[in-house]
Amino acid sequence: MTYAGDAPGEHASSTPDAATDRWRTAWHARWVLPVASAPIEHGAVVVEGDRIAWVGPSSSAVAERHERLGDAVLLPGLVNAHTHLELTGLRGFLEGLDFRDWLRVLTIVRRDVLSEDDLLDAARFGVAEALSAGITTLADCSASGVPLRAMREAGVRGRVYLETFGPDPRQVDESMRALRTGVSRLRDQATELVHVGVSPHAPYTVSPALFNAVAEYARAESLPVATHVAESAAETAFVRDGAGPFADRLRARDIAVQGTGTSPVSLLERTGLLATQPLLIHAIQVDADDIARIAGSGATVVHCPISNAKLGQGIAPVCALRDAGIAVGLGSDSVASNDAMDLVQEARQAVLLQSLRLGTPDALSATTVLDLATRAGARALGLADVGELVAGARADLCAFRIDALEAAPVYDPAVLLVHVLGAGRRAALTMVAGQVLVRDGHVLHADAAVRARVAAAAERVRRWAEAGG
Amino acid sequence: MTYAGDAPGEHASSTPDAATDRWRTAWHARWVLPVASAPIEHGAVVVEGDRIAWVGPSSSAVAERHERLGDAVLLPGLVNAHTHLELTGLRGFLEGLDFRDWLRVLTIVRRDVLSEDDLLDAARFGVAEALSAGITTLADCSASGVPLRAMREAGVRGRVYLETFGPDPRQVDESMRALRTGVSRLRDQATELVHVGVSPHAPYTVSPALFNAVAEYARAESLPVATHVAESAAETAFVRDGAGPFADRLRARDIAVQGTGTSPVSLLERTGLLATQPLLIHAIQVDADDIARIAGSGATVVHCPISNAKLGQGIAPVCALRDAGIAVGLGSDSVASNDAMDLVQEARQAVLLQSLRLGTPDALSATTVLDLATRAGARALGLADVGELVAGARADLCAFRIDALEAAPVYDPAVLLVHVLGAGRRAALTMVAGQVLVRDGHVLHADAAVRARVAAAAERVRRWAEAGG
Repeated sequence: MTYAGDAPGEHASSTPDAATDRWRTAWHARWVLPVASAPIEHGAVVVEGDRIAWVGPSSSAVAERHERLGDAVLLPGLVNAHTHLELTGLRGFLEGLDFRDWLRVLTIVRRDVLSEDDLLDAARFGVAEALSAGITTLADCSASGVPLRAMREAGVRGRVYLETFGPDPRQVDESMRALRTGVSRLRDQATELVHVGVSPHAPYTVSPALFNAVAEYARAESLPVATHVAESAAETAFVRDGAGPFADRLRARDIAVQGTGTSPVSLLERTGLLATQPLLIHAIQVDADDIARIAGSGATVVHCPISNAKLGQGIAPVCALRDAGIAVGLGSDSVASNDAMDLVQEARQAVLLQSLRLGTPDALSATTVLDLATRAGARALGLADVGELVAGARADLCAFRIDALEAAPVYDPAVLLVHVLGAGRRAALTMVAGQVLVRDGHVLHADAAVRARVAAAAERVRRWAEAGG
Repeated sequence: MTYAGDAPGEHASSTPDAATDRWRTAWHARWVLPVASAPIEHGAVVVEGDRIAWVGPSSSAVAERHERLGDAVLLPGLVNAHTHLELTGLRGFLEGLDFRDWLRVLTIVRRDVLSEDDLLDAARFGVAEALSAGITTLADCSASGVPLRAMREAGVRGRVYLETFGPDPRQVDESMRALRTGVSRLRDQATELVHVGVSPHAPYTVSPALFNAVAEYARAESLPVATHVAESAAETAFVRDGAGPFADRLRARDIAVQGTGTSPVSLLERTGLLATQPLLIHAIQVDADDIARIAGSGATVVHCPISNAKLGQGIAPVCALRDAGIAVGLGSDSVASNDAMDLVQEARQAVLLQSLRLGTPDALSATTVLDLATRAGARALGLADVGELVAGARADLCAFRIDALEAAPVYDPAVLLVHVLGAGRRAALTMVAGQVLVRDGHVLHADAAVRARVAAAAERVRRWAEAGG
């Protein structure tokens, strides 16, 4: 994960420049899964520069170069629409904690034990994990902003939503100053692939006044917005009634809390945030009115099924959200809750949880849930031409081998990928904007020293915890 | 999966005889996870013949031979307490079908399209998949009985519960004759590792009179018993009220159906089946009275979380069952519903689903759920000295490498295995009764031709389905 250069733009200069490479390369695979159209057995995707030029049967592919992936499934690169890359070093550390304690310990560790260099290494490690799992787009929520540098170094497509916090209405100006400063700094580092958004964290950490201020700022600056919302019953109790553990904690800090009588989504509407068409993270505690509000606003949703289950939060109504016309993507959330970044596993989990929620087998088909993991995820982020295998789309691809013992028989390659191979697989190919970033499971250009530094930081966290935290 | 010989006993004669091998071998690993006691960093397990002789720190291990697994987690072999190995060739075929249709199509295909040779190859393929996933004990429910031969050939520990069906009370004698014949034939093939049980299939396919007859037979012949029970709301409606889709289907076949006014578990009690201390498969639709009945009878439970979720059946009350003192193991169920045999993935799923059911984070710790996957599973099958890393226990072991990119940092090796590596991993080692059956992810002695034959049978199934079924 260390590259030839370290200044802005180093990626393009240290590797062949995809955007100006006019040679066409045909990538052949046993199965091509465009997701939005039928699988092609013995198919190919022709890439020219940073775009897809053609998709069809192998035998008809015309190109200067041919790369044969063999017994593999080739599909659009996976879109992970919710991560916290800077927390990668805390994987497995917060196991079993109640959500409020989980958030409290996390906040202290991030502030007191980990340096910004630690967070940057963690983010680099997380990006490498993402690439090795076939993820080509990352939408990250970050308090520090460092994941943007990690993304840019690695050549992945992505967005960093810089987080802002402030449950006390008296904090609005202070929070907004910090946010504006952070956004200016990050915007200087943005590239065509990686850009900046803002994220008022959640209704229990952001006052209505701060939601309002962020909404005005985002609209004025044309910044995309993301927010955690409707994740827990505790959050609903806090917003609706000013009650429960979140309220108790704020009151103990001498911060005024009052119930709004409305749902968390309705609060976003009242404070103007919903009008910014934000990416809504989680959206579990939503009723039919909330779904109508989201659909009417043009906001989108990212579903994080494993995190939601592991923390005992519940199952988002993904089918109902989709039926209302809302773009729903998939996210892994932080590996501090998840504990692995594996979007195929999230896809399988989304099917299992919707089936349980609706009491019906396979409530989402394998093809539908792969759409969530690719095209719909890109739509949820407002990214055009991403997550599709069609001529003219960005050349973001991933492939997984299907020669594992258990990958037989093959009745449907989408079922094979989601439910059989389903998890824990390294990508045979990960390509972003025409650049090959992973080949045969190996992350190219990755620096093994990053993993060792992340482990060393983890050792410091462990000692801190053993000393009483 | 073809071996040196093909007659009974060929396995012992074609490989070194573990039972008489008095050389001790120490298996060293970065982490030894006895599950029932604390993890040992840099630990070793000493194996002598088919037993474990010693477990402790690497530096103190005394043995004639030393095998070093390196950066791996070594734990008791996994116990898969519910499979249908003969259905391995139908992986992914029945996707999205309603449970009744799922069962109907399955029954027709097994009867009309697949030969007994096809079922045997499917079972061999399923056993290889199990071994490659670190599974050392298989408890299989089978209509044909052929999985016993597949298990014996491969050297895995296991039991085949021969299934009997008969919803019509007039069928009891016929069903019992077939069952007795099948059991006699299978018992001739049993070995110390692999033995025979009986399985009256489920309350909606077995009349109360047949349950009663099987119970008497099992008691007289000291046969272990397993039955699917309390899997679906439709089953409960059938048993309690004589209503719903199962009842409609039987009445259409001119079979008398009447509600019993009781729960499925209570039906098992009334028909004498519960007194045989059966393995209860699924046990989702159980209330507090049912749990007390199960606990009082000495029956055990196997939980199949992924199958239950995928079919939309619900979440078994695993924590309540355990709190009542019931031995609960984990099962993958058939790959026709699951669609992969991966007990580590089932373990993770069990944690996620119990957390959702109870609305609390990590309702089962990683160590607890590994206990379900090993020692508690063996207890649920009534197997002594299995599923534990202690001196004197059977030498059934498995190991998984932890050098994958994402296997860092390590705060707790059980969390790492269950939640991070969690799925899709091939075992670095699978050992049954002192015999190494998998090394470095490769199933030793496996015959690649079996996989090809399973694929060819799948092609016949696909053509049959395309021709209208």
